Amino acid sequence: MSKTVELAKHLEKLHINNMYKNDFYWTWDKTDEELEAVFTVADALRDLRERNLSTRVFDSGLGISIFRDNSTRTRFSFASACNLLGLEVQDLDEKKSQIAHGETVRETANMVSFMADVIGIRDDMFIGEGHKYQKTFVDAVEEGYRDGILEQRPTLVNLQCDVDHPTQCMADMLHVIHHFGGVENLKGKKVAMTWAYSPSYGKPLSVPQGVIGLFTRFGMDVVLAHPEGYEVMPEIEEIAKKNAAATGGSFSKTSSMQEAFRDADIVYPKSWAPFAAMEQRTQLYAAGDQAGIDQLEQELLAQNAQHKDWACTEDMMKLTRDGKALYLHCLPADISGLSCEEGEVDSSVFDRYLVPLYKQASYKPYIIAAMIFLSKVKDPAAALMELDRRGEKRKEF
Amino acid sequence: MSKTVELAKHLEKLHINNMYKNDFYWTWDKTDEELEAVFTVADALRDLRERNLSTRVFDSGLGISIFRDNSTRTRFSFASACNLLGLEVQDLDEKKSQIAHGETVRETANMVSFMADVIGIRDDMFIGEGHKYQKTFVDAVEEGYRDGILEQRPTLVNLQCDVDHPTQCMADMLHVIHHFGGVENLKGKKVAMTWAYSPSYGKPLSVPQGVIGLFTRFGMDVVLAHPEGYEVMPEIEEIAKKNAAATGGSFSKTSSMQEAFRDADIVYPKSWAPFAAMEQRTQLYAAGDQAGIDQLEQELLAQNAQHKDWACTEDMMKLTRDGKALYLHCLPADISGLSCEEGEVDSSVFDRYLVPLYKQASYKPYIIAAMIFLSKVKDPAAALMELDRRGEKRKEF
Amino acid sequence: MSKTVELAKHLEKLHINNMYKNDFYWTWDKTDEELEAVFTVADALRDLRERNLSTRVFDSGLGISIFRDNSTRTRFSFASACNLLGLEVQDLDEKKSQIAHGETVRETANMVSFMADVIGIRDDMFIGEGHKYQKTFVDAVEEGYRDGILEQRPTLVNLQCDVDHPTQCMADMLHVIHHFGGVENLKGKKVAMTWAYSPSYGKPLSVPQGVIGLFTRFGMDVVLAHPEGYEVMPEIEEIAKKNAAATGGSFSKTSSMQEAFRDADIVYPKSWAPFAAMEQRTQLYAAGDQAGIDQLEQELLAQNAQHKDWACTEDMMKLTRDGKALYLHCLPADISGLSCEEGEVDSSVFDRYLVPLYKQASYKPYIIAAMIFLSKVKDPAAALMELDRRGEKRKEF
Repeated sequence: MSKTVELAKHLEKLHINNMYKNDFYWTWDKTDEELEAVFTVADALRDLRERNLSTRVFDSGLGISIFRDNSTRTRFSFASACNLLGLEVQDLDEKKSQIAHGETVRETANMVSFMADVIGIRDDMFIGEGHKYQKTFVDAVEEGYRDGILEQRPTLVNLQCDVDHPTQCMADMLHVIHHFGGVENLKGKKVAMTWAYSPSYGKPLSVPQGVIGLFTRFGMDVVLAHPEGYEVMPEIEEIAKKNAAATGGSFSKTSSMQEAFRDADIVYPKSWAPFAAMEQRTQLYAAGDQAGIDQLEQELLAQNAQHKDWACTEDMMKLTRDGKALYLHCLPADISGLSCEEGEVDSSVFDRYLVPLYKQASYKPYIIAAMIFLSKVKDPAAALMELDRRGEKRKEF
Repeated sequence: MSKTVELAKHLEKLHINNMYKNDFYWTWDKTDEELEAVFTVADALRDLRERNLSTRVFDSGLGISIFRDNSTRTRFSFASACNLLGLEVQDLDEKKSQIAHGETVRETANMVSFMADVIGIRDDMFIGEGHKYQKTFVDAVEEGYRDGILEQRPTLVNLQCDVDHPTQCMADMLHVIHHFGGVENLKGKKVAMTWAYSPSYGKPLSVPQGVIGLFTRFGMDVVLAHPEGYEVMPEIEEIAKKNAAATGGSFSKTSSMQEAFRDADIVYPKSWAPFAAMEQRTQLYAAGDQAGIDQLEQELLAQNAQHKDWACTEDMMKLTRDGKALYLHCLPADISGLSCEEGEVDSSVFDRYLVPLYKQASYKPYIIAAMIFLSKVKDPAAALMELDRRGEKRKEF
Repeated sequence: MSKTVELAKHLEKLHINNMYKNDFYWTWDKTDEELEAVFTVADALRDLRERNLSTRVFDSGLGISIFRDNSTRTRFSFASACNLLGLEVQDLDEKKSQIAHGETVRETANMVSFMADVIGIRDDMFIGEGHKYQKTFVDAVEEGYRDGILEQRPTLVNLQCDVDHPTQCMADMLHVIHHFGGVENLKGKKVAMTWAYSPSYGKPLSVPQGVIGLFTRFGMDVVLAHPEGYEVMPEIEEIAKKNAAATGGSFSKTSSMQEAFRDADIVYPKSWAPFAAMEQRTQLYAAGDQAGIDQLEQELLAQNAQHKDWACTEDMMKLTRDGKALYLHCLPADISGLSCEEGEVDSSVFDRYLVPLYKQASYKPYIIAAMIFLSKVKDPAAALMELDRRGEKRKEF
C-alpha cells in the first residue's frame, strides 16, 4: 500500500465535511481534525508528486492571486500549488488595474472571479485592514454566486493577513511534525516564539500570532518573548491560552529572550512591529498626516534600536535543549554581518540550519494545495486513492 | 437534449463559414448570422461550464494579450476565455519589452506569434490610432504566415479600439437578450445611449459607437444623446442609420438627456470624450506640443464641467418606461458621492442595479471565448456536440 | 514514415546520455553529437506541431524565467517552448520580489524551485557576472535536490549570459543549416561576424562570442571583424581556433569590415560593447563610482562615434558572394534612417532580408524546447516516436 493510500485511509476517518466549499482565514477557525486533514493531504500530494503521479484535479480554471505587499516565496508557493492541481494563476496587480480609480472591492471581486476556483490574498500591511479586505472580498463573491453572477464560488486561501499567516504557520508545523517524527512526539516540547532585532522595524505580526495560535494546539509549552511595546493582539493571546488549556500544554509570556530560549526544543526568533504604534500609524495614514507618520517613524526606529541585543546568537543557541533547538524562520531572515550589520540571527547559526530552513519552506506549496484540494474536492480521500490508482504520470517519458 | 446540443443544432443552420480563421475587429464587419453565432456559442460554452464539462479545444497554445491602456476586467475576461479553451495567456507588456527601442509593430507581431493562436489587443487611447495598430499587427502575422514564418495564423480579437468595443457591446447585448427573454422581444424597445458627466473627461468613444452600431441591428429605437461638442464619429452614425433602416427600428439624436430617457426600456448613460478635441489632442501629441496639450486640457475640463447636470439621477430614472428601464454600464462607473463628488450616476440608482450590472459583465469572458472558438474551430456545431457527448469533467472529483 | 520518425531514428544513433538531467550553459561544453541532437529534436518538435500533434511531455510543472535584462523575443520564445511541452511559466521579477532586500541567490534559487522543471536565466549585463549568477543558481538547486529539499532537480537553459547566447546562436545555425540545405553544405562557407555601429554602444558580447564559438565547428571560414578596442574575450577566440583546426575550417581576425565581407556567404554585422571598457565599468559599478561611470560613458560614446562607417550598406553587401550573402541578425537591429539616424544596417538591405530574418528567429522556441526535452526526457528518440505514433491532436476539432 502506497503512502498516499495510507494517508487517504486516515483522511477517511476525519470529520471534515465543513471544509468543502469553505474558506481558510485563520487556523483557529478550524477544528483539530480539519488541520490534521490539511497536513494529511499535503503529505499525500507530496508523495504523489515524488512518485511522478499527476495530481491534476482541474482541466482548466483560474487561481487569482492578490498581493497587496511584495512577496517572492508566497507568490511562487501559490503558483506551484495551483499548477499542481491544474489551475492557472492570474495575478491581480493593482498597479496595472483600475482599482485605484474608484472601484470598490466588491465590484473587483466579482469582475475577476468569473472563472476563478480559488483566490489567494496577501494583505498584511495595516492592522485591522488585511482581514477586513479578505472578508469583504469573500462576502462579495459569496453574494455574486448566490445572485447567479458567478457559476462557481471561489474559495479563499489567506496568504497572510494582519492577524494570521496560516499557510506559513502550517508549513512550519508540518516541518516540526516531520522533524520530531510525528505529532505524538510534540507534547511537552518547549517552543520559544521570540521577537528579534532587525533594522527594518515594520514587519507584520501575523507570524508570531499565527505561531502562538497554532503551536499551542499540540500540547507544547509555548513561550512568547518580546521587549515592552511589542505586544501582539490580545485576542490571539487569549486563543493561545485556551488552546494550551485544552491540550495540556502551556502558553506563557516573558520579556527575556534568554528565559524563552532556555531548554527550548524549538526557537522562532524574528522581528515584528510594535502593535500599538502600528495602529497609530494606520490612523495617521487614514488621516493623511504625513508629518505625523514621519515623526512616528523616527520614534519607532529609536525604540527599535534599543533592543539590538535581541538576537539569535551562538551564545543564545547554547541555552537551548542540548544547544540544538530546531531553529525556525519564515525567511528571508536579517542575518547579522550578511544582509545587515546587526540583525535577527548570527550568520553561523543561520548557516548551520540552512537545510532544515529550506525544508521548512518546501512544505508551503503543499499546504496551500491541500487547502485548495479540501475546499474544492467533495470526497478528498476517494480522490487521493483514485489519483494513486490510475497512476497517470506527471512527466511522461 | 441538453441546452448545448439545442444551441449547436441552431448553430448548424447559420451561415458562418467566413468566421473560420478570421479576425474580429468590428461588429459591423459581421453578418447578422455571424453575430448570432457568437451569442449562440457563448451560451453553449456557459452551459457546458455550468455543468462542469470541459471546454478545452487546445492541449497547448498561447493567447497573446496586448493592453496599451490599463484594464482589469477586460484583462481577466480575456485570460478566462483563453483558459476556458486551453490556451495560456502571455501578456506583451510594453514596459518590460524592447518595443519602445525602435522595434516596429510588424517585427514584434511576428516575434511574439510563433506559438500564438489568438491575439487580443486593447488600444483605445488615440482617435485614428487604435484600429490602425491592430490592422498593422494582423497584416504582419498574415504575411508571416504566408511566408512560412508562423506555422499557424493567429486571429485577432479586438479588446477595444478607438472605433468599436465589440466584446463589451456584444456582452451588453447578450445580457439584454436574456433580460428581455429573447431577441424576438427587442423590436420596438427604446434604447437611450447617452453621454453623462464624469470628472475624468477623456474616456474612449468606442462604447457609445459600439452600442449604436450594434443595438440598431435588432429593430430597436436607439437614441443617442449628448451635449454639443461630444459628437461620435460620423461614419458610425451612418452605420447606425443604415442598420435601423434595414431592421425596422430607428436611430435618432438629441441634445436632451431627458428626451432620451423618456419611456426608454434601456438606458446606457456614460461619459466620453469630445471627439474633435481628441483629434486635436492626437495632433498636438504627434507634434510633441506639451504646452498645447496642457492648454487644451484646461479648456476641456471647463467645457466638461458645464454639463454636470447630465447625470443618471433618481429623477431621470423616473422618466423611463414605468421608471424601471434596464440600466447598463460597462464599469467602472463614476458614482456620485461614492467614487467622485459628482458623476455619471446616483449611488442609489447604481446600487439598485448591482446584480444586473455584474451579470452584464459576466457575459464578456464567454463572448471572447466564442469569438476565439468560431475563428479556430472548423465545425463549431459538431465540436460543441462532441464536447457535450464525451462529457469530460472540468473539475474531476 | 513521417519526418519526426526519421529524425527520431537519426537521434537514436547519437551519443547523448550526458544531456539527461544536465544544464545548457555554453555550446562548447557540448559534444558535436549533443548539438546535433538539439537541432534534430528542434526539427522534430516543429514537424509535430506543424502537423497539429501534441508535444506535451508534462501534465503540470513550472518553467521559471529570470530576466535580469529586458527582453521581448527571448521571453516569448521561452514561454512558447515551455507551453509546447506542457510547463507553465512563472517569471521571477526582481522588482516585485524581495530579492533586493538582502536575500541571497542561493536562497532564492531554492525558494522558487519547489515545482520547477526548468530554469531559464538571462543575465548579460556585466562581464564576469552573468555566468557566475547562473552557476551559483544551479549549484544551489543541485544542493537543494541532494538535500531532499527539491523533489526534482530543475535544469538550466542559459537564455543569454555575458559569455554565450546558446539559444540564439543555435537558432541562427539551424536557420543556416536549412538555408544551405544541410550541414554537409557548410564546409568552406565564409562567415563574417563583424562589429557594426549603433548609437547604443553597450550591447553584450555574447552573440559574437557565441557565433565564433559555434560556427567554427562546422568547417566554415569564420572571420571576426571589429575596430580596435572592441575585442571579444580571448578565451573564446581560443575556442574558435581549436574548433576550426578540428573541423578543417578557419578562424581569423581583421580590423576591416570590407575584408570580412568580401566573398562572404554569411554576414552577421551587429554592434557590441568594448570589452575592456565594460570590465572597467563593472569595477566602477562595484565601487559605486557614479562620476567614473559617467565619464567612462562619455569616452565610450566618443570612441563609438568614430566608427560610424562600420555599417551594412548596399555597397558592403555587393562585396559578398554574388552580392547575395545570407544576412543574419538576432534582432532588434538598429536600422539607419528607420530606428536611428545612423545604425548597423541600411534600411533597404534589412527590408530585403525580412523573411529570412523572421525565419531565423522562428527557430528559437524550438531550440529552447529541444534543450528542455533533452534534459528532461530519458529516451528522447522513443518519446518522439511515441508522440508521433499516438497522434494526439494539439488543437482538437
